[in-house]
Amino acid sequence: MSSKYIVIEGLEGAGKTTARNLVVETLKSLGVTDMTFTREPGGTVLAEKLRSLVLDIKSVGDEVITDNAEVLLFYAARVQLVETVIKPALARGEWVIGDRHDLSTQAYQGGGRGIDRQLLATLRQAVLGDFAPDLTLYLDVDPRIGLERARARGELDRIEQESLDFFNRTRARYLELAAADPRIITIDACQPLEAVSHDIRATVTRWVQEQQ
Amino acid sequence: MSSKYIVIEGLEGAGKTTARNLVVETLKSLGVTDMTFTREPGGTVLAEKLRSLVLDIKSVGDEVITDNAEVLLFYAARVQLVETVIKPALARGEWVIGDRHDLSTQAYQGGGRGIDRQLLATLRQAVLGDFAPDLTLYLDVDPRIGLERARARGELDRIEQESLDFFNRTRARYLELAAADPRIITIDACQPLEAVSHDIRATVTRWVQEQQ
Repeated sequence: MSSKYIVIEGLEGAGKTTARNLVVETLKSLGVTDMTFTREPGGTVLAEKLRSLVLDIKSVGDEVITDNAEVLLFYAARVQLVETVIKPALARGEWVIGDRHDLSTQAYQGGGRGIDRQLLATLRQAVLGDFAPDLTLYLDVDPRIGLERARARGELDRIEQESLDFFNRTRARYLELAAADPRIITIDACQPLEAVSHDIRATVTRWVQEQQ
Repeated sequence: MSSKYIVIEGLEGAGKTTARNLVVETLKSLGVTDMTFTREPGGTVLAEKLRSLVLDIKSVGDEVITDNAEVLLFYAARVQLVETVIKPALARGEWVIGDRHDLSTQAYQGGGRGIDRQLLATLRQAVLGDFAPDLTLYLDVDPRIGLERARARGELDRIEQESLDFFNRTRARYLELAAADPRIITIDACQPLEAVSHDIRATVTRWVQEQQ
């Protein structure tokens, strides 16, 4: 089977790390051996520097990062990761498992922050073209539950400190985009852990079998 | 007279700093007192960090910055500068004198590096809209002369180390864009300093008088 790009998406505290481990375990049980892992924003020297700029800018100065600058930085980090890590890994026959990708920008910036969706669509098309994940697992969680889990883990970064309204708008956009794209599968991450784990394993197994 | 945004453009070693001083001196003699100075990429906390990433990335790691990532970083820095420094200064009634602006990206990336001009035009329109300098002075110099001057000043940064062909393509694009836009005035910077200085003073004086 040819290499695939699988992305895990969701709000803070949705359980992306647990899901990632389950996806990897399931893929291994299905015979997939070579995998590369990415996270966004980040994953290259340049992209990690941009990640800390975007997530921590308020702590290094009084300057407020403008919405458009933030979006451009996310896309700069993304295009660097896609061109220097993801595409080469896929070309070597490896599967790529990503913690976030473009859907995060569409949901957080387009939904949460209300940035013009036409601008986001234009940027995406201009720099990524038709490149997209083969499968995205969107872990849907109520922001109140997710944020409680994220807070329990320690300090929140700039984006995690946004208001509950922000996360409700982000979730709504995630759900809207997931409903419109068959390559995005929504997992109900409000369920007990056992049920979520079962859904992830079953979804990945079914999807991989469909590809063969 | 309402505030204006004047930009000085040209290859390395074209004499932008000298020209800037002449423009300021000329504007003062014409009664302009409040001025803000910018340089690109840079001019804000975020933008200066991006400047050092773009100009020095090869010295902090082995990672090669992709063309598209470079362009997005330039635009992130630019939109941050325009929104947080240039527009507020103009709104306060100050004149803004800039060392480089969007024309540099069109010439260096679009001409020198051969990045798709449609992509550059799309990005520019998406993030800057119709915002543009009221006057741009393009200092036209033969790259061989300019690079000799730049080398005499000390170490060259990543972009200044590009080949002579790169700078010839960049210059050709500058000339092409200057010919197509009446708000860009070309100054022959291959002339002796006295003649260049005379042309800059005369051009700025004439232009300011035309605005009244």
